[in-house]
Amino acid sequence: MALKTLSAKNAAALDKDLMSVGAFSIDQLMELAGLSVSQAVFRVHPLSRGRRILVACGPGNNGGDGLRLATQLRNLGVPFVDDFESAMTEADHVVDAIFGFSFSGEVREPFPAVIKALKETSLPVTSVDAPSSWSIEDGPPVSGPGNGFHPSTLVSLTAPKPLVKWFTGRHFIGGRFVSPDIAKKYNLELPAYEGIDQVVEVENIAIKL
Amino acid sequence: MALKTLSAKNAAALDKDLMSVGAFSIDQLMELAGLSVSQAVFRVHPLSRGRRILVACGPGNNGGDGLRLATQLRNLGVPFVDDFESAMTEADHVVDAIFGFSFSGEVREPFPAVIKALKETSLPVTSVDAPSSWSIEDGPPVSGPGNGFHPSTLVSLTAPKPLVKWFTGRHFIGGRFVSPDIAKKYNLELPAYEGIDQVVEVENIAIKL
Repeated sequence: MALKTLSAKNAAALDKDLMSVGAFSIDQLMELAGLSVSQAVFRVHPLSRGRRILVACGPGNNGGDGLRLATQLRNLGVPFVDDFESAMTEADHVVDAIFGFSFSGEVREPFPAVIKALKETSLPVTSVDAPSSWSIEDGPPVSGPGNGFHPSTLVSLTAPKPLVKWFTGRHFIGGRFVSPDIAKKYNLELPAYEGIDQVVEVENIAIKL
Repeated sequence: MALKTLSAKNAAALDKDLMSVGAFSIDQLMELAGLSVSQAVFRVHPLSRGRRILVACGPGNNGGDGLRLATQLRNLGVPFVDDFESAMTEADHVVDAIFGFSFSGEVREPFPAVIKALKETSLPVTSVDAPSSWSIEDGPPVSGPGNGFHPSTLVSLTAPKPLVKWFTGRHFIGGRFVSPDIAKKYNLELPAYEGIDQVVEVENIAIKL
């Protein structure tokens, strides 16, 4: 299976198509994207390894649309933390949902310290769409807090971005809602989702360099 | 596990609470409800028994919010049929999503013929929230097209309705988004969802009569 990659620009255009031509609402897409991430984490991190999943949410779509989801999470009894680094000492797994495919340029405050902590932790880290601070097209930064940050797992939503060429951990594709027509338009090959799965694990070697 | 039932009135109130206090959007709830149904069907009807799932959608929430979802389904290559009875001859499993917990009174046209076909088919039928035409509080109708209609599977969303007292097939609870506070308010006992499951199969004998 030769998976093709999707540039940041095309990833944004594809999302727009899903909502216009595809008639998906943002709520649907985010719900399904979140389910993909949770299934990937469940796959790489069985409950027996600990149930404390710390999720680092950024300010954009990658972190979910803040306020409304925060209310839902509070109602479901999910605690929030202010001090990320302290929280890491009590976590079993970290989800990096800080920056997604629209990230470019410098890591703004207060995120440098968070990314440094993600880099230095011995906990498993699952990044959503991109290891935060990596360039979508050019991969790991050669300087700054993200230099040397290599998460253990990556979940690529809808399709891998060019940065996967530099990623060496476990890699999942999620987002089981791309229609054959949209896949064709963006020259993607849809992975073969099995049963009720929202993710497919792929071999990195299958990515065309 | 003693599952308690939820009246039609309280089911409507609970849905309102999910959207106000719970801050869920209708799109999220319908997406997750639909996932519950698909997982239940996947559980009772393995792919080896045939992949042709015919879904009978009614005009209300139980059938999904028509137009937008119809566009999504067309884009995903899911065919639509006009003649339900002919389509049944080519189906492997039927999902009855005609009427939900807000149904009461008479079965309006064009649904009597559809319900008669559901009653008479030898195909497995999975009903969503209620076997269509059943009274939510009083169960199977004693006359009309639904008299004698007993689907093989029922998926109760958020909680079983009183009609489950008369249901004898396989029974699943779905809707993994009810918070502990809302469950407490409506005196429900949340089922123990496992792993990434959106449904739990329950024994009918566990329902308190």
